[in-house]
Amino acid sequence: MKTLTVIKIGGNIVDRPDELDLFLENFVKIDGPKILVHGGGVMASEMLSRLGIEIEMHQGRRITNLETLKVVSMVYAGWINKSIVAKLQKIGCNSFGLSGADADSVPAVKRSPEPIDFGYVGDVDPANINTGFLLSLLGRGITPVFCPVTHDRNGSILNTNADTMASSIAIALTGDYYTKLVYCFEKQGVLYDTLDENSIIPLITKSNYNSLKEKGLVKDGMLPKMDNAFYALENGVSEVLIKHASNLGNDKGTLLK
Amino acid sequence: MKTLTVIKIGGNIVDRPDELDLFLENFVKIDGPKILVHGGGVMASEMLSRLGIEIEMHQGRRITNLETLKVVSMVYAGWINKSIVAKLQKIGCNSFGLSGADADSVPAVKRSPEPIDFGYVGDVDPANINTGFLLSLLGRGITPVFCPVTHDRNGSILNTNADTMASSIAIALTGDYYTKLVYCFEKQGVLYDTLDENSIIPLITKSNYNSLKEKGLVKDGMLPKMDNAFYALENGVSEVLIKHASNLGNDKGTLLK
Repeated sequence: MKTLTVIKIGGNIVDRPDELDLFLENFVKIDGPKILVHGGGVMASEMLSRLGIEIEMHQGRRITNLETLKVVSMVYAGWINKSIVAKLQKIGCNSFGLSGADADSVPAVKRSPEPIDFGYVGDVDPANINTGFLLSLLGRGITPVFCPVTHDRNGSILNTNADTMASSIAIALTGDYYTKLVYCFEKQGVLYDTLDENSIIPLITKSNYNSLKEKGLVKDGMLPKMDNAFYALENGVSEVLIKHASNLGNDKGTLLK
Repeated sequence: MKTLTVIKIGGNIVDRPDELDLFLENFVKIDGPKILVHGGGVMASEMLSRLGIEIEMHQGRRITNLETLKVVSMVYAGWINKSIVAKLQKIGCNSFGLSGADADSVPAVKRSPEPIDFGYVGDVDPANINTGFLLSLLGRGITPVFCPVTHDRNGSILNTNADTMASSIAIALTGDYYTKLVYCFEKQGVLYDTLDENSIIPLITKSNYNSLKEKGLVKDGMLPKMDNAFYALENGVSEVLIKHASNLGNDKGTLLK
Protein backbone atom coordinates (compact mmCIF):
# COMPACT_ATOMS: atom_id res chain seq x y z
CA MET A 1 0.00 0.00 0.00
CA LYS A 2 1.24 3.50 -0.88
CA THR A 3 2.13 5.93 1.92
CA LEU A 4 0.01 9.07 2.37
CA THR A 5 1.50 11.83 4.52
CA VAL A 6 -0.95 14.16 6.27
CA ILE A 7 0.83 17.18 7.70
CA LYS A 8 -0.58 19.81 10.00
CA ILE A 9 1.18 23.15 10.25
CA GLY A 10 0.42 25.41 13.20
CA GLY A 11 -0.70 29.03 13.16
CA ASN A 12 2.54 30.29 14.72
CA ILE A 13 4.52 29.11 11.69
CA VAL A 14 1.97 30.23 9.13
CA ASP A 15 2.42 33.76 10.48
CA ARG A 16 6.21 33.81 9.82
CA PRO A 17 6.94 34.13 6.07
CA ASP A 18 10.53 32.79 6.16
CA GLU A 19 9.66 29.76 8.29
CA LEU A 20 6.59 29.08 6.17
CA ASP A 21 8.63 29.20 2.95
CA LEU A 22 11.24 26.80 4.36
CA PHE A 23 8.50 24.46 5.55
CA LEU A 24 6.78 24.49 2.16
CA GLU A 25 10.05 23.72 0.37
CA ASN A 26 10.49 20.63 2.56
CA PHE A 27 6.81 19.76 2.17
CA VAL A 28 7.13 19.69 -1.63
CA LYS A 29 10.07 17.25 -1.36
CA ILE A 30 8.00 14.59 0.42
CA ASP A 31 7.55 11.64 -1.91
CA GLY A 32 4.12 10.36 -2.76
CA PRO A 33 0.64 11.71 -2.08
CA LYS A 34 0.29 14.25 0.70
CA ILE A 35 -2.29 16.50 2.33
CA LEU A 36 -1.61 19.74 4.18
CA VAL A 37 -3.84 21.08 6.97
CA HIS A 38 -3.01 24.54 8.24
CA GLY A 39 -4.00 26.52 11.30
CA GLY A 40 -4.03 30.28 11.59
CA GLY A 41 -5.13 31.15 15.10
CA VAL A 42 -2.44 33.81 15.56
CA MET A 43 -3.50 35.77 12.47
CA ALA A 44 -7.18 35.31 13.32
CA SER A 45 -6.63 36.76 16.80
CA GLU A 46 -4.69 39.67 15.31
CA MET A 47 -7.50 40.40 12.82
CA LEU A 48 -10.15 40.15 15.55
CA SER A 49 -8.19 42.69 17.61
CA ARG A 50 -7.85 45.07 14.65
CA LEU A 51 -11.62 44.86 14.16
CA GLY A 52 -12.30 45.44 17.85
CA ILE A 53 -13.97 42.04 18.28
CA GLU A 54 -13.49 40.50 21.72
CA ILE A 55 -11.50 37.27 21.77
CA GLU A 56 -13.12 34.66 23.97
CA MET A 57 -11.31 31.46 24.89
CA HIS A 58 -12.12 28.55 27.16
CA GLN A 59 -9.21 26.31 28.19
CA GLY A 60 -7.22 27.42 25.16
CA ARG A 61 -10.06 26.82 22.69
CA ARG A 62 -11.76 29.67 20.85
CA ILE A 63 -15.41 30.51 21.43
CA THR A 64 -16.76 31.35 17.97
CA ASN A 65 -19.75 33.70 17.74
CA LEU A 66 -21.08 34.71 14.31
CA GLU A 67 -18.75 37.70 13.96
CA THR A 68 -15.76 35.62 14.98
CA LEU A 69 -16.79 32.89 12.52
CA LYS A 70 -16.78 35.45 9.72
CA VAL A 71 -13.26 36.64 10.61
CA VAL A 72 -11.94 33.13 11.17
CA SER A 73 -13.25 31.97 7.78
CA MET A 74 -11.82 35.07 6.09
CA VAL A 75 -8.37 34.54 7.57
CA TYR A 76 -8.21 30.73 7.28
CA ALA A 77 -10.06 30.02 4.02
CA GLY A 78 -9.17 33.32 2.38
CA TRP A 79 -5.75 34.85 2.91
CA ILE A 80 -3.80 31.96 4.49
CA ASN A 81 -5.22 29.16 2.35
CA LYS A 82 -4.85 30.98 -0.97
CA SER A 83 -1.39 32.33 -0.10
CA ILE A 84 -0.14 28.83 0.67
CA VAL A 85 -1.66 27.44 -2.54
CA ALA A 86 -0.06 30.20 -4.65
CA LYS A 87 3.33 29.58 -3.00
CA LEU A 88 3.06 25.81 -3.59
CA GLN A 89 2.10 26.36 -7.24
CA LYS A 90 5.25 28.45 -7.65
CA ILE A 91 7.52 25.70 -6.33
CA GLY A 92 6.04 22.97 -8.49
CA CYS A 93 3.36 21.47 -6.27
CA ASN A 94 -0.08 21.42 -7.89
CA SER A 95 -2.14 22.12 -4.81
CA PHE A 96 -5.79 22.76 -4.21
CA GLY A 97 -7.09 24.79 -1.27
CA LEU A 98 -10.32 23.72 0.36
CA SER A 99 -12.52 23.79 3.42
CA GLY A 100 -14.65 20.91 4.62
CA ALA A 101 -17.69 22.49 2.95
CA ASP A 102 -16.14 22.12 -0.50
CA ALA A 103 -17.50 19.03 -2.22
CA ASP A 104 -18.84 18.16 1.25
CA SER A 105 -15.35 16.81 1.88
CA VAL A 106 -15.36 17.16 5.68
CA PRO A 107 -18.82 17.59 7.19
CA ALA A 108 -19.02 18.30 10.91
CA VAL A 109 -21.52 18.47 13.76
CA LYS A 110 -21.97 21.71 15.69
CA ARG A 111 -20.78 21.08 19.23
CA SER A 112 -23.47 20.87 21.90
CA PRO A 113 -23.85 24.15 23.84
CA GLU A 114 -23.63 22.12 27.07
CA PRO A 115 -21.57 22.30 29.25
CA ILE A 116 -19.75 25.15 27.41
CA ASP A 117 -21.25 26.94 24.41
CA PHE A 118 -18.36 27.21 21.96
CA GLY A 119 -20.64 28.74 19.31
CA TYR A 120 -19.99 27.92 15.65
CA VAL A 121 -17.53 25.12 16.32
CA GLY A 122 -17.75 21.80 14.52
CA ASP A 123 -16.53 18.35 15.47
CA VAL A 124 -15.55 15.88 12.76
CA ASP A 125 -16.35 12.19 12.63
CA PRO A 126 -13.75 10.49 10.39
CA ALA A 127 -16.46 8.08 9.17
CA ASN A 128 -18.29 10.99 7.46
CA ILE A 129 -15.32 12.28 5.48
CA ASN A 130 -15.85 12.18 1.72
CA THR A 131 -12.84 10.03 0.90
CA GLY A 132 -13.97 9.44 -2.70
CA PHE A 133 -13.42 13.06 -3.58
CA LEU A 134 -10.06 13.24 -1.79
CA LEU A 135 -8.89 10.05 -3.49
CA SER A 136 -9.83 11.49 -6.89
CA LEU A 137 -7.76 14.64 -6.21
CA LEU A 138 -4.79 12.59 -4.96
CA GLY A 139 -5.16 10.28 -7.95
CA ARG A 140 -4.78 13.28 -10.27
CA GLY A 141 -1.54 14.23 -8.48
CA ILE A 142 -3.20 17.19 -6.77
CA THR A 143 -2.24 18.06 -3.18
CA PRO A 144 -5.23 19.13 -1.05
CA VAL A 145 -4.54 22.04 1.33
CA PHE A 146 -7.20 22.21 4.05
CA CYS A 147 -8.08 25.20 6.18
CA PRO A 148 -9.69 24.36 9.55
CA VAL A 149 -13.22 25.24 8.43
CA THR A 150 -16.00 22.68 7.98
CA HIS A 151 -19.78 22.89 7.51
CA ASP A 152 -22.89 21.49 9.21
CA ARG A 153 -24.69 20.38 5.98
CA ASN A 154 -27.40 22.85 7.06
CA GLY A 155 -26.05 26.00 5.44
CA SER A 156 -23.47 27.10 7.98
CA ILE A 157 -19.72 26.86 8.04
CA LEU A 158 -18.06 25.89 11.33
CA ASN A 159 -14.71 26.60 12.95
CA THR A 160 -12.83 23.35 13.54
CA ASN A 161 -9.66 22.43 15.41
CA ALA A 162 -6.91 21.91 12.83
CA ASP A 163 -5.18 19.11 14.80
CA THR A 164 -8.42 17.13 14.90
CA MET A 165 -9.12 17.85 11.25
CA ALA A 166 -5.71 16.45 10.30
CA SER A 167 -6.07 13.32 12.44
CA SER A 168 -9.62 12.73 11.15
CA ILE A 169 -8.52 12.98 7.53
CA ALA A 170 -5.61 10.61 8.18
CA ILE A 171 -7.92 8.11 9.90
CA ALA A 172 -10.49 8.31 7.09
CA LEU A 173 -7.89 7.39 4.49
CA THR A 174 -6.29 4.45 6.35
CA GLY A 175 -8.26 1.99 4.25
CA ASP A 176 -6.65 3.28 1.07
CA TYR A 177 -3.16 4.24 2.22
CA TYR A 178 -0.52 3.54 4.83
CA THR A 179 -1.06 6.89 6.61
CA LYS A 180 1.55 8.96 8.39
CA LEU A 181 0.44 11.98 10.43
CA VAL A 182 2.89 14.81 11.15
CA TYR A 183 2.19 17.70 13.51
CA CYS A 184 4.53 20.60 12.78
CA PHE A 185 4.70 23.51 15.17
CA GLU A 186 7.13 25.94 16.84
CA LYS A 187 8.60 23.43 19.35
CA GLN A 188 11.22 20.74 18.69
CA GLY A 189 8.80 17.99 19.68
CA VAL A 190 7.41 16.69 22.93
CA LEU A 191 9.94 17.87 25.52
CA TYR A 192 10.96 16.49 28.93
CA ASP A 193 11.47 20.13 29.95
CA THR A 194 9.34 22.69 28.06
CA LEU A 195 12.05 25.30 28.61
CA ASP A 196 14.78 23.13 27.06
CA GLU A 197 14.36 22.65 23.31
CA ASN A 198 17.07 20.00 23.38
CA SER A 199 15.16 17.73 25.76
CA ILE A 200 13.15 16.03 23.01
CA ILE A 201 11.45 12.76 23.94
CA PRO A 202 12.34 10.70 20.86
CA LEU A 203 9.67 8.00 21.19
CA ILE A 204 6.38 7.82 23.03
CA THR A 205 4.25 4.70 23.16
CA LYS A 206 0.79 4.37 24.64
CA SER A 207 2.28 2.77 27.76
CA ASN A 208 4.90 5.41 28.50
CA TYR A 209 2.41 8.20 27.54
CA ASN A 210 0.37 7.42 30.64
CA SER A 211 3.42 7.48 32.86
CA LEU A 212 4.58 10.79 31.28
CA LYS A 213 1.15 12.25 32.00
CA GLU A 214 1.21 11.05 35.59
CA LYS A 215 4.64 12.64 36.10
CA GLY A 216 3.21 15.91 34.70
CA LEU A 217 5.69 15.89 31.79
CA VAL A 218 2.90 16.13 29.20
CA LYS A 219 0.47 18.91 30.02
CA ASP A 220 -1.44 22.03 28.90
CA GLY A 221 -1.56 22.60 25.15
CA MET A 222 0.30 19.37 24.43
CA LEU A 223 -2.42 17.17 25.98
CA PRO A 224 -5.12 17.56 23.26
CA LYS A 225 -2.43 17.18 20.55
CA MET A 226 -1.23 13.95 22.13
CA ASP A 227 -4.77 12.68 22.64
CA ASN A 228 -5.45 13.35 18.95
CA ALA A 229 -2.26 11.52 18.04
CA PHE A 230 -3.06 8.40 20.05
CA TYR A 231 -6.66 8.43 18.86
CA ALA A 232 -5.26 8.39 15.31
CA LEU A 233 -2.91 5.50 16.11
CA GLU A 234 -5.75 3.51 17.67
CA ASN A 235 -7.81 4.07 14.53
CA GLY A 236 -5.45 2.82 11.89
CA VAL A 237 -2.89 5.60 11.38
CA SER A 238 0.55 3.98 11.17
CA GLU A 239 2.69 6.60 12.84
CA VAL A 240 2.51 10.12 14.22
CA LEU A 241 5.37 12.61 14.38
CA ILE A 242 5.43 15.79 16.42
CA LYS A 243 8.19 18.18 15.39
CA HIS A 244 9.38 21.70 14.63
CA ALA A 245 8.23 22.92 11.22
CA SER A 246 11.83 23.62 10.19
CA ASN A 247 12.67 19.94 10.75
CA LEU A 248 10.15 18.51 8.31
CA GLY A 249 13.05 17.46 6.08
CA ASN A 250 14.95 15.56 8.82
CA ASP A 251 14.41 13.04 11.62
CA LYS A 252 14.39 15.42 14.59
CA GLY A 253 11.24 15.27 16.70
CA THR A 254 9.05 12.92 18.68
CA LEU A 255 7.73 9.71 17.18
CA LEU A 256 4.50 8.26 18.57
CA LYS A 257 3.81 4.61 17.91
CA MET B 1 -23.30 19.19 -27.29
CA LYS B 2 -24.42 19.70 -23.67
CA THR B 3 -25.15 23.21 -22.42
CA LEU B 4 -22.91 24.70 -19.71
CA THR B 5 -24.25 27.75 -17.89
CA VAL B 6 -21.68 30.15 -16.42
CA ILE B 7 -23.31 32.65 -14.08
CA LYS B 8 -21.76 35.69 -12.51
CA ILE B 9 -23.40 37.20 -9.44
CA GLY B 10 -22.48 40.76 -8.45
CA GLY B 11 -21.23 42.00 -5.10
CA ASN B 12 -24.39 44.02 -4.42
CA ILE B 13 -26.49 40.85 -4.35
CA VAL B 14 -23.95 38.77 -2.43
CA ASP B 15 -24.26 41.35 0.37
CA ARG B 16 -28.06 40.87 0.76
CA PRO B 17 -28.87 37.52 2.43
CA ASP B 18 -32.51 37.25 1.23
CA GLU B 19 -31.68 38.09 -2.38
CA LEU B 20 -28.69 35.76 -2.31
CA ASP B 21 -30.80 32.87 -0.97
CA LEU B 22 -33.46 33.40 -3.67
CA PHE B 23 -30.77 33.57 -6.33
CA LEU B 24 -29.13 30.36 -5.11
CA GLU B 25 -32.47 28.53 -5.10
CA ASN B 26 -32.96 29.45 -8.76
CA PHE B 27 -29.33 28.65 -9.51
CA VAL B 28 -29.73 25.10 -8.19
CA LYS B 29 -32.75 24.54 -10.48
CA ILE B 30 -30.73 25.17 -13.66
CA ASP B 31 -30.45 21.92 -15.57
CA GLY B 32 -27.09 20.54 -16.55
CA PRO B 33 -23.56 21.54 -15.61
CA LYS B 34 -23.05 25.04 -14.27
CA ILE B 35 -20.36 27.29 -12.83
CA LEU B 36 -20.87 30.22 -10.47
CA VAL B 37 -18.52 33.22 -10.31
CA HIS B 38 -19.21 35.71 -7.52
CA GLY B 39 -18.09 39.25 -6.82
CA GLY B 40 -17.90 40.88 -3.43
CA GLY B 41 -16.68 44.43 -3.94
CA VAL B 42 -19.26 45.91 -1.57
CA MET B 43 -18.21 43.72 1.36
CA ALA B 44 -14.52 44.21 0.55
CA SER B 45 -14.93 47.99 0.64
CA GLU B 46 -16.79 47.74 3.94
CA MET B 47 -14.02 45.58 5.47
CA LEU B 48 -11.32 47.94 4.15
CA SER B 49 -13.13 50.85 5.81
CA ARG B 50 -13.45 48.98 9.12
CA LEU B 51 -9.71 48.30 9.02
CA GLY B 52 -8.93 51.91 8.18
CA ILE B 53 -7.37 51.03 4.83
CA GLU B 54 -7.81 53.66 2.15
CA ILE B 55 -9.94 52.61 -0.82
CA GLU B 56 -8.37 53.64 -4.11
CA MET B 57 -10.28 53.38 -7.36
CA HIS B 58 -9.52 54.42 -10.93
CA GLN B 59 -12.48 54.66 -13.31
CA GLY B 60 -14.51 52.31 -11.13
CA ARG B 61 -11.74 49.70 -10.84
CA ARG B 62 -9.99 48.95 -7.57
CA ILE B 63 -6.29 49.68 -7.09
CA THR B 64 -4.98 46.74 -5.07
CA ASN B 65 -1.92 47.26 -2.88
CA LEU B 66 -0.63 44.40 -0.70
CA GLU B 67 -2.85 45.24 2.26
CA THR B 68 -5.90 45.54 0.02
CA LEU B 69 -5.03 42.22 -1.65
CA LYS B 70 -5.02 40.56 1.76
CA VAL B 71 -8.46 41.95 2.63
CA VAL B 72 -9.90 41.23 -0.81
CA SER B 73 -8.71 37.61 -0.68
CA MET B 74 -10.08 37.22 2.86
CA VAL B 75 -13.50 38.53 1.90
CA TYR B 76 -13.79 36.88 -1.54
CA ALA B 77 -12.05 33.52 -1.05
CA GLY B 78 -12.88 33.24 2.65
CA TRP B 79 -16.21 34.40 3.96
CA ILE B 80 -18.23 34.88 0.74
CA ASN B 81 -16.97 31.83 -1.12
CA LYS B 82 -17.36 29.41 1.79
CA SER B 83 -20.74 30.85 2.82
CA ILE B 84 -22.09 30.32 -0.70
CA VAL B 85 -20.71 26.78 -0.85
CA ALA B 86 -22.25 25.88 2.53
CA LYS B 87 -25.62 27.31 1.42
CA LEU B 88 -25.50 25.37 -1.86
CA GLN B 89 -24.61 22.13 -0.04
CA LYS B 90 -27.70 22.63 2.14
CA ILE B 91 -30.03 22.94 -0.86
CA GLY B 92 -28.70 19.90 -2.65
CA CYS B 93 -26.02 21.29 -4.92
CA ASN B 94 -22.63 19.65 -4.46
CA SER B 95 -20.47 22.70 -4.98
CA PHE B 96 -16.79 23.37 -4.70
CA GLY B 97 -15.34 26.81 -3.94
CA LEU B 98 -12.12 27.81 -5.59
CA SER B 99 -9.84 30.61 -6.69
CA GLY B 100 -7.79 30.60 -9.85
CA ALA B 101 -4.73 29.50 -7.85
CA ASP B 102 -6.36 26.21 -6.88
CA ALA B 103 -5.16 23.43 -9.16
CA ASP B 104 -3.77 26.30 -11.29
CA SER B 105 -7.31 26.53 -12.68
CA VAL B 106 -7.18 30.18 -13.75
CA PRO B 107 -3.66 31.63 -13.99
CA ALA B 108 -3.36 35.34 -14.69
CA VAL B 109 -0.78 37.95 -15.62
CA LYS B 110 -0.17 40.91 -13.33
CA ARG B 111 -1.31 44.01 -15.17
CA SER B 112 1.43 46.33 -16.42
CA PRO B 113 1.98 49.33 -14.11
CA GLU B 114 1.76 51.60 -17.17
CA PRO B 115 -0.24 53.78 -17.74
CA ILE B 116 -1.99 53.17 -14.37
CA ASP B 117 -0.50 50.96 -11.64
CA PHE B 118 -3.44 48.88 -10.41
CA GLY B 119 -1.16 46.88 -8.08
CA TYR B 120 -1.93 43.20 -7.50
CA VAL B 121 -4.47 42.90 -10.28
CA GLY B 122 -4.42 40.01 -12.72
CA ASP B 123 -5.74 39.69 -16.25
CA VAL B 124 -6.86 36.31 -17.53
CA ASP B 125 -6.20 34.80 -20.95
CA PRO B 126 -8.92 32.20 -21.63
CA ALA B 127 -6.33 30.11 -23.50
CA ASN B 128 -4.43 29.49 -20.22
CA ILE B 129 -7.40 28.22 -18.21
CA ASN B 130 -6.96 24.65 -16.94
CA THR B 131 -10.08 23.23 -18.58
CA GLY B 132 -9.06 19.62 -17.84
CA PHE B 133 -9.48 20.13 -14.13
CA LEU B 134 -12.79 21.99 -14.54
CA LEU B 135 -14.12 19.28 -16.86
CA SER B 136 -13.23 16.61 -14.29
CA LEU B 137 -15.16 18.47 -11.57
CA LEU B 138 -18.17 19.00 -13.85
CA GLY B 139 -17.97 15.36 -14.93
CA ARG B 140 -18.29 14.31 -11.28
CA GLY B 141 -21.44 16.44 -10.97
CA ILE B 142 -19.64 19.05 -8.87
CA THR B 143 -20.48 22.74 -9.35
CA PRO B 144 -17.41 25.00 -9.22
CA VAL B 145 -17.93 28.30 -7.36
CA PHE B 146 -15.20 30.79 -8.26
CA CYS B 147 -14.17 33.85 -6.28
CA PRO B 148 -12.49 36.60 -8.31
CA VAL B 149 -8.98 35.77 -7.17
CA THR B 150 -6.29 34.32 -9.47
CA HIS B 151 -2.51 33.82 -9.21
CA ASP B 152 0.58 34.78 -11.19
CA ARG B 153 2.27 31.32 -11.08
CA ASN B 154 5.07 33.12 -9.26
CA GLY B 155 3.80 32.82 -5.71
CA SER B 156 1.33 35.67 -5.54
CA ILE B 157 -2.42 35.76 -5.69
CA LEU B 158 -4.04 38.52 -7.75
CA ASN B 159 -7.32 40.41 -7.61
CA THR B 160 -9.30 39.85 -10.81
CA ASN B 161 -12.45 41.36 -12.27
CA ALA B 162 -15.27 38.87 -11.74
CA ASP B 163 -17.06 39.74 -15.03
CA THR B 164 -13.89 39.00 -16.99
CA MET B 165 -13.24 35.84 -15.00
CA ALA B 166 -16.74 34.57 -15.87
CA SER B 167 -16.43 35.40 -19.58
CA SER B 168 -12.93 33.88 -19.76
CA ILE B 169 -14.11 30.62 -18.16
CA ALA B 170 -17.09 30.46 -20.55
CA ILE B 171 -14.82 31.08 -23.55
CA ALA B 172 -12.32 28.44 -22.40
CA LEU B 173 -15.02 25.78 -22.24
CA THR B 174 -16.67 26.50 -25.60
CA GLY B 175 -14.84 23.57 -27.20
CA ASP B 176 -16.50 21.15 -24.77
CA TYR B 177 -19.92 22.69 -24.23
CA TYR B 178 -22.51 24.95 -25.77
CA THR B 179 -21.80 27.82 -23.32
CA LYS B 180 -24.30 30.31 -21.98
CA LEU B 181 -23.04 33.27 -19.93
CA VAL B 182 -25.38 35.05 -17.50
CA TYR B 183 -24.51 38.29 -15.71
CA CYS B 184 -26.77 38.75 -12.67
CA PHE B 185 -26.79 42.05 -10.83
CA GLU B 186 -29.09 44.58 -9.14
CA LYS B 187 -30.60 46.04 -12.34
CA GLN B 188 -33.32 44.52 -14.53
CA GLY B 189 -30.99 44.35 -17.52
CA VAL B 190 -29.59 46.87 -19.97
CA LEU B 191 -32.03 49.78 -19.74
CA TYR B 192 -33.04 52.49 -22.25
CA ASP B 193 -33.41 54.77 -19.22
CA THR B 194 -31.22 53.90 -16.21
CA LEU B 195 -33.82 55.44 -13.90
CA ASP B 196 -36.66 53.30 -15.28
CA GLU B 197 -36.31 49.62 -14.37
CA ASN B 198 -39.12 48.79 -16.81
CA SER B 199 -37.25 50.11 -19.83
CA ILE B 200 -35.36 46.89 -20.46
CA ILE B 201 -33.75 46.51 -23.88
CA PRO B 202 -34.78 42.90 -24.67
CA LEU B 203 -32.19 42.14 -27.36
CA ILE B 204 -28.87 43.66 -28.29
CA THR B 205 -26.86 42.58 -31.28
CA LYS B 206 -23.38 43.73 -32.23
CA SER B 207 -24.86 46.11 -34.80
CA ASN B 208 -27.38 47.82 -32.56
CA TYR B 209 -24.81 47.88 -29.69
CA ASN B 210 -22.75 50.42 -31.59
CA SER B 211 -25.76 52.59 -32.26
CA LEU B 212 -26.82 52.37 -28.58
CA LYS B 213 -23.33 53.48 -27.57
CA GLU B 214 -23.38 56.37 -30.01
CA LYS B 215 -26.73 57.55 -28.63
CA GLY B 216 -25.21 57.38 -25.11
CA LEU B 217 -27.71 54.73 -23.97
CA VAL B 218 -24.97 52.32 -22.87
CA LYS B 219 -22.43 54.02 -20.63
CA ASP B 220 -20.41 54.06 -17.39
CA GLY B 221 -20.37 50.76 -15.49
CA MET B 222 -22.34 49.00 -18.20
CA LEU B 223 -19.68 49.55 -20.87
CA PRO B 224 -17.02 47.07 -19.59
CA LYS B 225 -19.77 44.49 -18.88
CA MET B 226 -21.06 44.81 -22.45
CA ASP B 227 -17.56 44.72 -23.90
CA ASN B 228 -16.92 41.50 -21.94
CA ALA B 229 -20.19 40.09 -23.23
CA PHE B 230 -19.46 40.80 -26.89
CA TYR B 231 -15.88 39.58 -26.51
CA ALA B 232 -17.35 36.30 -25.21
CA LEU B 233 -19.80 36.08 -28.14
CA GLU B 234 -17.00 36.72 -30.62
CA ASN B 235 -14.99 33.92 -29.01
CA GLY B 236 -17.45 31.10 -29.15
CA VAL B 237 -19.92 31.72 -26.31
CA SER B 238 -23.41 31.03 -27.65
CA GLU B 239 -25.43 33.63 -25.78
CA VAL B 240 -25.10 36.19 -23.01
CA LEU B 241 -27.87 37.35 -20.68
CA ILE B 242 -27.76 40.43 -18.46
CA LYS B 243 -30.46 40.43 -15.79
CA HIS B 244 -31.53 41.03 -12.20
CA ALA B 245 -30.42 38.26 -9.84
CA SER B 246 -34.02 37.69 -8.74
CA ASN B 247 -34.98 36.89 -12.35
CA LEU B 248 -32.57 34.02 -12.85
CA GLY B 249 -35.56 31.66 -12.95
CA ASN B 250 -37.46 33.59 -15.66
CA ASP B 251 -36.95 35.24 -19.04
CA LYS B 252 -36.78 38.86 -17.92
CA GLY B 253 -33.59 40.67 -18.91
CA THR B 254 -31.44 41.59 -21.87
CA LEU B 255 -30.26 38.97 -24.34
CA LEU B 256 -27.08 39.62 -26.29
CA LYS B 257 -26.51 37.66 -29.46
